[in-house]
Amino acid sequence: MSNDLQEINTNSAFTPFRGMGGLTADSVHVFAPATVANVVCGFDVLGFAVNEPGDEVVMRVKDTPGITISKITGDDGRLPLDPAKNTVSVSVQHYLNSIGRADIGLDIELHKKMPIGSGLGSSSASTVAGLYAIKTLMGDDRDPINLLPFAMKGEEMACGHGHADNVAPALLGGFVLIRSYEPLDVVRLPHPKDLWCAVVFPDVDVPTREARQIIRNKINMKDAVTQWGNIAGLVSGLFMQDIDLIGRSMKDVLVEPVRSMLIPDFYKMREIAMSNGAVSFGISGSGPSVFAFTRDEQTAKDITQKLQQHLTGLKIGSNTYVSTINDAGPRVIG
Amino acid sequence: MSNDLQEINTNSAFTPFRGMGGLTADSVHVFAPATVANVVCGFDVLGFAVNEPGDEVVMRVKDTPGITISKITGDDGRLPLDPAKNTVSVSVQHYLNSIGRADIGLDIELHKKMPIGSGLGSSSASTVAGLYAIKTLMGDDRDPINLLPFAMKGEEMACGHGHADNVAPALLGGFVLIRSYEPLDVVRLPHPKDLWCAVVFPDVDVPTREARQIIRNKINMKDAVTQWGNIAGLVSGLFMQDIDLIGRSMKDVLVEPVRSMLIPDFYKMREIAMSNGAVSFGISGSGPSVFAFTRDEQTAKDITQKLQQHLTGLKIGSNTYVSTINDAGPRVIG
Repeated sequence: MSNDLQEINTNSAFTPFRGMGGLTADSVHVFAPATVANVVCGFDVLGFAVNEPGDEVVMRVKDTPGITISKITGDDGRLPLDPAKNTVSVSVQHYLNSIGRADIGLDIELHKKMPIGSGLGSSSASTVAGLYAIKTLMGDDRDPINLLPFAMKGEEMACGHGHADNVAPALLGGFVLIRSYEPLDVVRLPHPKDLWCAVVFPDVDVPTREARQIIRNKINMKDAVTQWGNIAGLVSGLFMQDIDLIGRSMKDVLVEPVRSMLIPDFYKMREIAMSNGAVSFGISGSGPSVFAFTRDEQTAKDITQKLQQHLTGLKIGSNTYVSTINDAGPRVIG
Repeated sequence: MSNDLQEINTNSAFTPFRGMGGLTADSVHVFAPATVANVVCGFDVLGFAVNEPGDEVVMRVKDTPGITISKITGDDGRLPLDPAKNTVSVSVQHYLNSIGRADIGLDIELHKKMPIGSGLGSSSASTVAGLYAIKTLMGDDRDPINLLPFAMKGEEMACGHGHADNVAPALLGGFVLIRSYEPLDVVRLPHPKDLWCAVVFPDVDVPTREARQIIRNKINMKDAVTQWGNIAGLVSGLFMQDIDLIGRSMKDVLVEPVRSMLIPDFYKMREIAMSNGAVSFGISGSGPSVFAFTRDEQTAKDITQKLQQHLTGLKIGSNTYVSTINDAGPRVIG
């Protein structure tokens, strides 16, 4: 995976960093959003950001060089405080090195406000919050796309592969297409404003690495044609603001049939969502979270409630989230 | 392949035929355009129409029921005059049966104005010309999309498979996505107005059936992901009028590496086209025709001339065509 900034083709031009060379503040508090990757028919190339959940980073400038992590909350002790092993500090260090400011000292507090291993881009949200924090402190007013290669370094460490379908939407907000990885080519897609997203995280364990390993390496051309007809339909529907077309196109004949086996009662959950007004239903990232698109907030709320009830009946706890697509991406909250 | 009209989802609503029940004229002369299917990264799902070449049908009402074909020109005797074996008469008969007017008698003249077996949708152009002719005679003012199932019957007969990536753009004009075959779901895509198309048909034989047979049935998931990133990029570029993105996205890692073997000096032709200002270059349909997108007419003309010269050097004759994308589809010319 290349992290050469020069290779990013985007609808935002790449801009070299011309910061003031100094820090603009002593500390900053940043939120970055959860993301839904794959989006049913866009395995490894599509993702979008939601308004909640998300992670928060508090970053403070220190007198001595180097990055420390003084506190992590909400992770049940699962994430490393060692800055050489934490995706947030590792990506921030890559950023500082790239702008020739490895002399800067930082302390990081990471507040996990979303479940780990949920398929909602948990590591991406943390990494993007950290990168947006240092960008803000450095007075780096370039398009956030310039942070993408550093965020991908974090993903490589967290998941064993430098994919961008969570970090790119977390960083840019909205709906994002990773047209190509080599060279990296990212396209921001529009979406209907009235598209709501209902997310349910069933509290079962589906590690990303294993979820990737069960995907078949060899597939049928016929199925691939079905899949790329659908992704072309989904992208058309996004541009045309055609929610019916979006719904018709969100079918996955390749990945979902395999990954759904790791998710409790996946097809029953789909039936519940679709019979209660969902436009589409599928796995978020590698699961176990699932999501539905709806045309309004109330339908999204009803669906999350019914899915949660169903999971409770299976003695499985769950978290639910309802939001529109988050066009802002990360933001400073203090 | 379903030919149930009820199953067509399109951005034009399906409309039942409510014709006057009578014929509006004694005869009609129709042109229907050649088409470029696949469009590099959209194997089996994308196609667009060009302004030239194309085929013509003259249709005359007879006193006695049944369809006859009195004349075919430009086919070097390769096409059957037997109405039970000709794709034009077969699709027109399907249409007449569907509207309960099998009593109508017709005579057809087919004028092939384009090479057969060129990869330019030769049979589709003829079929669509025939269907548009009977539609016109019947005073059937519904959206031409309603003719698609009959045109696909013709394709099934001509090519052994009822694909729509030539007939749909020939019928509708413009750039067309076949999102799904079962059920049939066709999406009209926009395109930049200043996109020019240079087409070169090298006069060598590449039968469609054999060109399909050499395509691999099993492919790598990794290559499929590359392909659907590209088709999503191409569709985005069409909506965004972003010719650079269109060009970057038009790469085919799956079909072209195999089919290019059947085309004389394919990679040299690509090099000539790209070094002379083409936005993209690829195989039209199953070949042997190739096409390039350009930003203006002169570049398209220069490229066809240079490719023709190169083929002449290989002692291969060729036909060349330069046009914008044809948004009109079939038209009455007399």
